[in-house]
Amino acid sequence: MKIGIIGSGVVAQTLGAKLIEMGHDVVVGTRDPKKLDDKKKMAGSLAEWLARVGNKGRVVSFPEAAAHGDLLINATSGEISVDALKLAGADKVGNKVLIDTSNALDFSKGMPPRSLATQDYCVAEQIQSAFPNLRVVKSLNTVGAPVMVNPQGLAGGGHTIFVSGNDKPARAAVGELLTAFGWTDILDLGDLSTARGPEMYMAMWLRLWGATGTVAVNIKVVR
Amino acid sequence: MKIGIIGSGVVAQTLGAKLIEMGHDVVVGTRDPKKLDDKKKMAGSLAEWLARVGNKGRVVSFPEAAAHGDLLINATSGEISVDALKLAGADKVGNKVLIDTSNALDFSKGMPPRSLATQDYCVAEQIQSAFPNLRVVKSLNTVGAPVMVNPQGLAGGGHTIFVSGNDKPARAAVGELLTAFGWTDILDLGDLSTARGPEMYMAMWLRLWGATGTVAVNIKVVR
Repeated sequence: MKIGIIGSGVVAQTLGAKLIEMGHDVVVGTRDPKKLDDKKKMAGSLAEWLARVGNKGRVVSFPEAAAHGDLLINATSGEISVDALKLAGADKVGNKVLIDTSNALDFSKGMPPRSLATQDYCVAEQIQSAFPNLRVVKSLNTVGAPVMVNPQGLAGGGHTIFVSGNDKPARAAVGELLTAFGWTDILDLGDLSTARGPEMYMAMWLRLWGATGTVAVNIKVVR
Repeated sequence: MKIGIIGSGVVAQTLGAKLIEMGHDVVVGTRDPKKLDDKKKMAGSLAEWLARVGNKGRVVSFPEAAAHGDLLINATSGEISVDALKLAGADKVGNKVLIDTSNALDFSKGMPPRSLATQDYCVAEQIQSAFPNLRVVKSLNTVGAPVMVNPQGLAGGGHTIFVSGNDKPARAAVGELLTAFGWTDILDLGDLSTARGPEMYMAMWLRLWGATGTVAVNIKVVR
């Protein structure tokens, strides 16, 4: 499948590498791809990432990434996601499925960052409102990047990941991708308003990180 | 132990009944105990509760409950907790430990209720700020009342409960009580600012309730 990732940080790189490994045709969109040439192959840089994926991935502009993907992934920071998707021309790409993995965080007051999510501030709902044609599915924002693509790597797996979205077939399609990543407990929360749950949960995740000292932490919903 | 519960709803009644069963000397504080005489023994009423606990509990005023307990429990709704504790004279009871079980919810816009918690709206921190002598420990707000006192009743137990508070011995004392309730995975999150995590988590819990159709739901922190 053609997959366009909007954003180029650790989440984009981790998802991109996994999806390339799975055989997908992946591009990673960055705000200014020209800058790529200037950067050394330092750890975490896109040049280093390209070398790591054997140049099977491509780094392109935001609009190229949005146009390329049959499936889109928002891997930008939640507080700037709507602006990034505007730059990407997400209003011109029809009814593509967009997986929103973002969290809105404020690092300006020290660590841990403050989670900006509230009942009235839900990034996934903001994206859906700004781009009504996209089929937005919130997922993967409740775990760190390494866990996203390797749930078995944490305690052998079996813990829970969530999907929220207004389009049921889109939620199911994202569920298939999650299954391919190794997720076995995929909890469908329902329509996109339910994304307020996983977004506000980030405040809890930050405290679990603090208490356990590891980002390799997740929850299993016991019912 | 002498325990004073501020509030008289389902959380107060459930905790009160369990603590009485465990042999504690429990009073439940209500805003206007005179009204008790007027109420029929309807399900959920305090008169029905008194009959159920064999009159071993007592229903008293807020100030009497705060004065009685060596340990205090806030079981009022989070959005009115500070006011209730002011009525209870919580500024006059020294440095008692107060377990804050509350969540601030807004039911005015239909179901599910809106969780009011944000990084700047944390009931436990508001209580600590209003009553600096109290040793506030946030706990139990992440599960429904029946699960609070019977974790084994949900999937045999083993799932997680949280404690947050500025006083480490107070957190440990609450941990002992939780152990007596049957909790085996008690995660100490740290100082009271960490209560923002469990309070904002309520938005997730509401969606877990919606997706699973049961309030008998909790999370196990996998690390």
